[in-house]
Amino acid sequence: LALRLLVPVGPATSTGGRPPAQVAFNAGAATVLSIDLGATHATIALTDLNAKVISQRSVALDIAEGPHAVLDVALGLGKELLEQVDVPVIGIGIGVPGPVEHSTGRPISPPIMPGWDGFDIPAYVRQSIDVTVLVDNDVNILALGEHATSWPDVDDLVFVKVATGIGAGVISSGSLQRGSQGAAGDMGHVQVPYSRDSPRPPEDERDLEAIASGTAIAKQLTASGLKAESAADVADLVRSGDARAIEATRQAGREIGEVLSVVVSMLNPSVIVVGGSVARAGEHLLAGIKEIVYRRSIPLATQHLSIVPSQSGERAAVVGAAIMVANRALSPAAIDQFAAQDLGSPSARVRVL
Amino acid sequence: LALRLLVPVGPATSTGGRPPAQVAFNAGAATVLSIDLGATHATIALTDLNAKVISQRSVALDIAEGPHAVLDVALGLGKELLEQVDVPVIGIGIGVPGPVEHSTGRPISPPIMPGWDGFDIPAYVRQSIDVTVLVDNDVNILALGEHATSWPDVDDLVFVKVATGIGAGVISSGSLQRGSQGAAGDMGHVQVPYSRDSPRPPEDERDLEAIASGTAIAKQLTASGLKAESAADVADLVRSGDARAIEATRQAGREIGEVLSVVVSMLNPSVIVVGGSVARAGEHLLAGIKEIVYRRSIPLATQHLSIVPSQSGERAAVVGAAIMVANRALSPAAIDQFAAQDLGSPSARVRVL
Repeated sequence: LALRLLVPVGPATSTGGRPPAQVAFNAGAATVLSIDLGATHATIALTDLNAKVISQRSVALDIAEGPHAVLDVALGLGKELLEQVDVPVIGIGIGVPGPVEHSTGRPISPPIMPGWDGFDIPAYVRQSIDVTVLVDNDVNILALGEHATSWPDVDDLVFVKVATGIGAGVISSGSLQRGSQGAAGDMGHVQVPYSRDSPRPPEDERDLEAIASGTAIAKQLTASGLKAESAADVADLVRSGDARAIEATRQAGREIGEVLSVVVSMLNPSVIVVGGSVARAGEHLLAGIKEIVYRRSIPLATQHLSIVPSQSGERAAVVGAAIMVANRALSPAAIDQFAAQDLGSPSARVRVL
Repeated sequence: LALRLLVPVGPATSTGGRPPAQVAFNAGAATVLSIDLGATHATIALTDLNAKVISQRSVALDIAEGPHAVLDVALGLGKELLEQVDVPVIGIGIGVPGPVEHSTGRPISPPIMPGWDGFDIPAYVRQSIDVTVLVDNDVNILALGEHATSWPDVDDLVFVKVATGIGAGVISSGSLQRGSQGAAGDMGHVQVPYSRDSPRPPEDERDLEAIASGTAIAKQLTASGLKAESAADVADLVRSGDARAIEATRQAGREIGEVLSVVVSMLNPSVIVVGGSVARAGEHLLAGIKEIVYRRSIPLATQHLSIVPSQSGERAAVVGAAIMVANRALSPAAIDQFAAQDLGSPSARVRVL
């Protein structure tokens, strides 16, 4: 109550004795600043403690310009959003398009982020806004956002993103699982053994990403004489109804399904969400995934399994980044620390958690 | 303190003001009754709240005699153990050799447990000893026991049992993951796609269990003219140094490795423990597993990965069943309920949690 995280609501009905107080969680007690960095864009949002977006800015931004340039723009926009509200910000959540050591917030050999390898994102951000800064890869952030937005009552969910690359976010027992080195969900680097359902030869031992990502499909289509350089081009061809692009996308779904069928047996999720630009181009990718997962898995594991397209789209990213921070901030240990701060004065808007 | 879960220890050093009290967790405040049911044996143990075994009985018992006969013997032995101590029992943990719906404690179509399908184990047990009864399959129980006994500081561990069948127990973020229907870890029913490392033909789409379990290896050896009817026979042949049995076991390890390499990329465990009778026959199964997992997975996922034989052996089962109960019993909600009981009187030995 002292923190305003709980506030009294309505007149309580007395049942005799000491009158009970009715209280409710006050999601507006503080804000979270959420930064979604993509390859060519950034979205910055201010949310409440329920990850509900209060205000938002998007800007075209090339991640390859490096951490100083990109973060300066994002933080400048973030400060503008913060100045418009009069409650403290308890933390900043950042999603980046590459692998991150979550415990330190440093990208690890990110393929499309030149200049970011090993960069201490939290330390740099806190020079501007001195609050808790949490960083994770975009797929984990999307999994958190999709879960919170569309499947809040589901405990076991796997989110798969199929775009330029392939990655997954694993939620078990209601929590995002990062694994021992933060490398969980690295589905793109699974080697796909030969299957007789695949046109690939038995000698082919490439990673899933090299076989079934948007980039890989584009290469196949180019080899067959079509003009396709990227996942976006593949999505465009599929939307235009090109038969070769549709079949290649469906086959990519089957290859992804081979890997997901192992995931289904090992983790027994009730929902698999498929997102990313290739998935958004139509039902073909999902159809290929379903075809193999339902054929390969035993009925007990699939009878209550839904395989669905992403509902939240890109909005899930800023929601997920905010959820990541709110989950940490509302832990009992964090609340004790938060309580030690003076949140009453207007000047206390920006606070160290 | 009132529950005796915390007890004062030693003289506290005063730093002025109110003298601080030094307290310690009192694992002896209550006991857990742990029942490990195998195909042909039962082990019954009484443990403290740290799952440390106080006393134990083992008995030859055919699970196929059905639930009444088997549970009556196990509970009879359990009562003898309970009568020797003067603290309350807070719950009973039971492991069975087949799939179980953990939320209800009912076996689900267990292949080697005739008469047990859908049987309400907790309800039957509570007619004798009216406490909380939790039931799970033997592999989950072994995973909990191995984790508690040998890897208590590891958050992400996968336990694989290779014996008559193949199953796995998945621990992520320090907790056993059962999945949405309790079917997580069903590694035996994963279909293994063709790999050029395997002597199997591309058309072979059998489950892992049909290819690499002790039973499957025995069938292969029988076909090649050796006498082997069971996983135990395979283990004996391997121990005797038979070259064909050793190579078949190593190849089974490779097939298991194909599936585990997907698990490593998706869950990023730091430890994979391999147990069961086939694993205990020597290093050949483990060597096959390591060969494929290290070849197929990316360095980030395997550089801190240990693939090791089970340390605890069968002892892990009763420890794991006790851990399962203690975890539930020491949750905050359960302690509140426990506190409502009168634990002071000697007659309060058997208590409803």
